[in-house]
Amino acid sequence: MTAVPAVEALLFDVFGTVVDWRGSIARLGAAFAEGRDLPPVDWAAFADAWRARYQPAMAEVREGRRPFVRLDVLHRENLDAILADFGLESLSAAERDELNLFWHRLDPWPDSVAGMTRLKRRLILAAQSNGNIGLIVDMAKYGGLPWDVVLGAEVVGAYKPRPEAYLGACERLGRAPGRCLMVAAHNDDLAAAADCGLRTAFVRRPEEKAPGETYDLVPTGDWDLVVDSLDELADRLGC
Amino acid sequence: MTAVPAVEALLFDVFGTVVDWRGSIARLGAAFAEGRDLPPVDWAAFADAWRARYQPAMAEVREGRRPFVRLDVLHRENLDAILADFGLESLSAAERDELNLFWHRLDPWPDSVAGMTRLKRRLILAAQSNGNIGLIVDMAKYGGLPWDVVLGAEVVGAYKPRPEAYLGACERLGRAPGRCLMVAAHNDDLAAAADCGLRTAFVRRPEEKAPGETYDLVPTGDWDLVVDSLDELADRLGC
Repeated sequence: MTAVPAVEALLFDVFGTVVDWRGSIARLGAAFAEGRDLPPVDWAAFADAWRARYQPAMAEVREGRRPFVRLDVLHRENLDAILADFGLESLSAAERDELNLFWHRLDPWPDSVAGMTRLKRRLILAAQSNGNIGLIVDMAKYGGLPWDVVLGAEVVGAYKPRPEAYLGACERLGRAPGRCLMVAAHNDDLAAAADCGLRTAFVRRPEEKAPGETYDLVPTGDWDLVVDSLDELADRLGC
Repeated sequence: MTAVPAVEALLFDVFGTVVDWRGSIARLGAAFAEGRDLPPVDWAAFADAWRARYQPAMAEVREGRRPFVRLDVLHRENLDAILADFGLESLSAAERDELNLFWHRLDPWPDSVAGMTRLKRRLILAAQSNGNIGLIVDMAKYGGLPWDVVLGAEVVGAYKPRPEAYLGACERLGRAPGRCLMVAAHNDDLAAAADCGLRTAFVRRPEEKAPGETYDLVPTGDWDLVVDSLDELADRLGC
């Protein structure tokens, strides 16, 4: 690790880095099932199955086989694809829409709001997520995430880890990539950002992982910073 | 005026509605001149001359004679065009860049931050300005404007009052136009928003105007709300 980077803007990965998508989807699913006549569902497994289709769906766009569509659309298609595996194929269109909005109400990790609030005093906080604008805005209102600006796939027209996603975000902020720090719990996201000249911070989020998953538990690159929370990131950046 | 509209998101015009562009440019210009060997300049007149080229420059884009370019680019071209009229043609490229960034540091009207802070508790606050993303973000950091999301021309790819600007903003938020309220000190902005199905609030900002200017001093349409400040808007919307 090098000296503390002199950056002006933080670009955040959101799913897994700032919010607990897995635990939230599982909790929201269980709450949805209450009082409904549904077969028993392992909602954590449901969350994992839904998320497993996330990268392949974006790959269709990233690799040019499909024009850009926002993540809400991909989430809904992926939901339709997994429902039968959980005995939920009888859910109505309105119920599927309701499930799809679970992604708009993901809980922040316990340190996220406090850490971001400190970081925001001195730095620009940009959501640089594959989530669409409305999703990220709804999530911020729900969880109190103090973004300065919502960038991300729908603003730049490209899904991470395409280089246009990182370079486009820096360009929209009017900052050189070296003045921007990508914050993520995922090594591939940071590797792509570093290739574009951004600085990097790895946040350890072991609780994002399903039992037995071992990827992204440790940093695998020479990231500028490695932290266990956004509070620690604020400490390290002197905020 | 009708009953208080049941909206979820407020789309704000920024220049003149939230911030005092005329007074700020005049103050920043006077500060810039201090200690420099420049001819005497009427900086309020300079602000007016710069702003007078704003609509014609955007018209080139709106009417399809020029591809979309961000407002920073138009501001810089307009600056270059007026400098000689004020005896400032000798300014270097770096000095011109410095002047151009005046638009990133405009002071909020005295009621803006307090009113927006109240409104933000219950509603989505979106900047729907012709200013580009970096400009609006820098201004928010400078003045403490608590946006939830920065939309505007650079996100939707169209300058107001093109209908795509308003409809695109609502669409990015995932809200029907009737759930969005356009907040502006300018009747033409509200008229275009109303034509797209948005609700409307006119904010009286007489201090935006140069002495003798009479347009936009009073509401000229049947707007849903007419207020004298963003604090009053918060009152009226029950925030």
